[in-house]
Amino acid sequence: MTLKIYLSGEIHTDWREQIIDGADGLDVTFDSPVTDHDASDDCGVAILGAEPNKFWHDHKGAKLNAIRTRKGISDADIVVVRFGEKYKQWNAAFDAGYAAALGKSVIVLNPPEHQHALKEIHAAALAVAEEPRQVVEILRYVLTGALPG
Amino acid sequence: MTLKIYLSGEIHTDWREQIIDGADGLDVTFDSPVTDHDASDDCGVAILGAEPNKFWHDHKGAKLNAIRTRKGISDADIVVVRFGEKYKQWNAAFDAGYAAALGKSVIVLNPPEHQHALKEIHAAALAVAEEPRQVVEILRYVLTGALPG
Amino acid sequence: MTLKIYLSGEIHTDWREQIIDGADGLDVTFDSPVTDHDASDDCGVAILGAEPNKFWHDHKGAKLNAIRTRKGISDADIVVVRFGEKYKQWNAAFDAGYAAALGKSVIVLNPPEHQHALKEIHAAALAVAEEPRQVVEILRYVLTGALPG
Amino acid sequence: MTLKIYLSGEIHTDWREQIIDGADGLDVTFDSPVTDHDASDDCGVAILGAEPNKFWHDHKGAKLNAIRTRKGISDADIVVVRFGEKYKQWNAAFDAGYAAALGKSVIVLNPPEHQHALKEIHAAALAVAEEPRQVVEILRYVLTGALPG
Amino acid sequence: MTLKIYLSGEIHTDWREQIIDGADGLDVTFDSPVTDHDASDDCGVAILGAEPNKFWHDHKGAKLNAIRTRKGISDADIVVVRFGEKYKQWNAAFDAGYAAALGKSVIVLNPPEHQHALKEIHAAALAVAEEPRQVVEILRYVLTGALPG
Amino acid sequence: MTLKIYLSGEIHTDWREQIIDGADGLDVTFDSPVTDHDASDDCGVAILGAEPNKFWHDHKGAKLNAIRTRKGISDADIVVVRFGEKYKQWNAAFDAGYAAALGKSVIVLNPPEHQHALKEIHAAALAVAEEPRQVVEILRYVLTGALPG
Amino acid sequence: MTLKIYLSGEIHTDWREQIIDGADGLDVTFDSPVTDHDASDDCGVAILGAEPNKFWHDHKGAKLNAIRTRKGISDADIVVVRFGEKYKQWNAAFDAGYAAALGKSVIVLNPPEHQHALKEIHAAALAVAEEPRQVVEILRYVLTGALPG
Amino acid sequence: MTLKIYLSGEIHTDWREQIIDGADGLDVTFDSPVTDHDASDDCGVAILGAEPNKFWHDHKGAKLNAIRTRKGISDADIVVVRFGEKYKQWNAAFDAGYAAALGKSVIVLNPPEHQHALKEIHAAALAVAEEPRQVVEILRYVLTGALPG
Repeated sequence: MTLKIYLSGEIHTDWREQIIDGADGLDVTFDSPVTDHDASDDCGVAILGAEPNKFWHDHKGAKLNAIRTRKGISDADIVVVRFGEKYKQWNAAFDAGYAAALGKSVIVLNPPEHQHALKEIHAAALAVAEEPRQVVEILRYVLTGALPG
Repeated sequence: MTLKIYLSGEIHTDWREQIIDGADGLDVTFDSPVTDHDASDDCGVAILGAEPNKFWHDHKGAKLNAIRTRKGISDADIVVVRFGEKYKQWNAAFDAGYAAALGKSVIVLNPPEHQHALKEIHAAALAVAEEPRQVVEILRYVLTGALPG
Repeated sequence: MTLKIYLSGEIHTDWREQIIDGADGLDVTFDSPVTDHDASDDCGVAILGAEPNKFWHDHKGAKLNAIRTRKGISDADIVVVRFGEKYKQWNAAFDAGYAAALGKSVIVLNPPEHQHALKEIHAAALAVAEEPRQVVEILRYVLTGALPG
Repeated sequence: MTLKIYLSGEIHTDWREQIIDGADGLDVTFDSPVTDHDASDDCGVAILGAEPNKFWHDHKGAKLNAIRTRKGISDADIVVVRFGEKYKQWNAAFDAGYAAALGKSVIVLNPPEHQHALKEIHAAALAVAEEPRQVVEILRYVLTGALPG
Repeated sequence: MTLKIYLSGEIHTDWREQIIDGADGLDVTFDSPVTDHDASDDCGVAILGAEPNKFWHDHKGAKLNAIRTRKGISDADIVVVRFGEKYKQWNAAFDAGYAAALGKSVIVLNPPEHQHALKEIHAAALAVAEEPRQVVEILRYVLTGALPG
Repeated sequence: MTLKIYLSGEIHTDWREQIIDGADGLDVTFDSPVTDHDASDDCGVAILGAEPNKFWHDHKGAKLNAIRTRKGISDADIVVVRFGEKYKQWNAAFDAGYAAALGKSVIVLNPPEHQHALKEIHAAALAVAEEPRQVVEILRYVLTGALPG
Repeated sequence: MTLKIYLSGEIHTDWREQIIDGADGLDVTFDSPVTDHDASDDCGVAILGAEPNKFWHDHKGAKLNAIRTRKGISDADIVVVRFGEKYKQWNAAFDAGYAAALGKSVIVLNPPEHQHALKEIHAAALAVAEEPRQVVEILRYVLTGALPG
Repeated sequence: MTLKIYLSGEIHTDWREQIIDGADGLDVTFDSPVTDHDASDDCGVAILGAEPNKFWHDHKGAKLNAIRTRKGISDADIVVVRFGEKYKQWNAAFDAGYAAALGKSVIVLNPPEHQHALKEIHAAALAVAEEPRQVVEILRYVLTGALPG
């Protein structure tokens, strides 16, 4: 069994690297959105032409990013959605809803102070973790049956 | 053509009433989540038994609310998702993602200051409005071809 | 919002009547399997001809019952699965799995002593109740937002 | 033609090994749930934190196991569901229902004394066997056309 | 529970009328193909223009008939497929395969001498009957739980 | 059997009225896009705000029209796509492709000079007609078995 | 582009070998049912135990064969269905219906005298051929654009 | 992440080669329709026999081409649809509608003078480009996050 994982959400810390490194040796593949914040914001106008209106500037870029995001989520067995401590992060919550509607196994990764605000997303998840290490342990258990410790 | 509308998101202002009243006479039906904030938070433990741990208190409730939310979104032709000025509102973004993955027509209603943070959700929407009145005008146009003014 | 409910499982107590009576006045419809135990066991041979072999006797009947069961589950918004205190009840668990795979909202109703043995089915459910009264309260809350008491 | 097989159900005898060994040389792949009973029961709390309440202890674990189970069933061409002589085994029946709803080819493997109690699941199966050897013979026939003897 | 029935196959005897009459009082609706043999053969050229080549003459007609057939099967809960004693009746077998792939409950109605030739279709059916009366009895049992006699 | 018809394509002649009038008395319902050319072009900016750039002016409008178009096609049993003598009419061909992918019965209505250019769309259609009268005759035949003349 | 082909139907002539040999060098894979007539008839009882009743003898076998048939059709891009000159061949027509409902590209291969009896199946096909050589030519054209001669 | 691209539409310029060459080194695969205009027009009669009527001549060919087209679109992650300066190009618009209904990411490539006539197709696309170079830049960005320049 090979598990395809999509790592959605927060792009300001190294949680993706922690999971990918921790999962070394497991039969997994990882995909993620483009995590270069500036490229992600400006890709639409950089390729398809400038827009004076910020709405359309963002719109063109968000649609290009959607090509990658939808492919990544659609192909995944497991979608890990990370909520960080700052920002609105509505795209992370959108990805969680999108993944849930497709019947993907959703794992949510968030600091405890967001528990109440995330309760609807937790209700659609198969696991709620606080640390990237726990996500790695889930992947190891699901693939091999081995528990930590 | 009858349009079935699900009104998702913010529950602190009267935007739902404005849309429902404005659509009077149109061939539409409306569904919404339970908008009583306290009932929505406590329904799980009130019916299925108390939980000392806040996570499970919320979890039980969020799952009961999901029965209604999923039914409402699945049955809808159009899902209107309203983002207000305050709070995390991750459930609104989750609903938008869920609706998008099911191929529903999504209309987003938000104040202009949230434009950038909502760009991924806007990219999945067929309309982005700032006022409930505009949603009514969309429904009237889609059903009758009549434009405002 | 009208909720279509399928009441699956145990046929030896009056739990279905308790739910149907309790839901009086709510916008719900109910379907159930044939609950006449003898008719359910013998329908195949009674209509399609006797079988000397018990396997095929049962097989013919179970397939006729499947016509009703699959229609009921497929049409439902909510599938309530009741586990009683006796018997194997594998058909109830099968219905729960079938409903879960179709994305139905599943409510499990069981006595507390079966908790551990039902943990996989509970994991796929949106509510776990012990009393028919609680199922009624869920339906009332989901449809009207009203809580008991 | 490569057949992907998921081996669901009873974990106390070596029926999986008998099938896997017997199928040596055939173009098949096998997946199974985690069959370490203790790990399977405790995985949730071992990774995601202890729960004083047995329901949530089991719930966390059952959801982690569901990640593997759903992946295994969804990817399979054939789901073999084994019912042993003891225990409730509702998870096996749940898997059978889940597989049937997804249109998988279901093979049931059970001792003859369970015939009547399994009639609804037999009605959804393409084969009912009593011995692991027969499952191997089915796989060999389906892949090569060769019959035993 | 209302059952929608599609009556496919043989058009030379009154089996449809026997079933429809027998089901009087039950909560069922019936659809059928156009059973006027000449109209069914010539509809294409009568409406869309003559064809000198018999293949295209038939092709135009068969496609118009497909509009009705696909609608009838897609909407049905149960597809009854009747094989008579004469002719190739490949359209009946095609309908059975079409219905099976859509997950419809299939009932086959055929004289006993066709048993062996229909074994693959019987394997996909939930009931195999020899008399229209038995189909009526199945519908009555499925809807009301009442058995004949 | 009630047939739901969506009438897509050319908006400059009275072909829709001819079909709707001709089908008087048949068990059919009709939906269409907004056929007011100016309203259809300007609906986006009239409701959601002016755009200096023609691309976005059109984009906003086309998305509002898509709410109606997708609903109409998704609900339909039959999609009639009319190609007129002038203009690019790429939206008509797009609707035909959209309908075909959803498995709808497609009827194409076009003047004979467009035969070669429409061959790929004809290949996905169940009927190709030149006159609205023929579409009415198809509907009458499919619903009643009656042929013209 | 690799094309997966399923070769359904008549098992008494060497049409499969002609196609497979003719397609040598093309990027295709082939699957077929078990074509050993005796094995195909008796597989059920040979593996799962004798049945005194011919119906159940055939039933057990047909269900084992269905494991292979459904896998083959579901995985295929193209289903070629061959009708020979003799026998009822209802399983071939069933496979054609099954394939059509799944949206597969269907090619029918039959002698000209069966044209009228196959008109409904021809109406669901993308090609109707009389010779295996033509099927090879279709595969070569679809994959390479090369025409015969 | 490997992206599967289908290149639909105009066959008279070298835009496909420009994209394929430009994407050299990226993790992509490309499929296209048969782009030999004469072969594409005549394939049906060349393989399956001459037709005196141009409609059926074209029909036979268009159905063979549909085998390739549907496979290519169904397998693709991204469908690029190119509209050239001349001809009706209804097959390109049909492919765009077909791809959109299947939820594919659609990129439209067209000269600016077609903007208004393509607005409904643009509304279903995730990107609208004027130059093949921009399509390459999109693929590079989606796969690697790198922007041009």
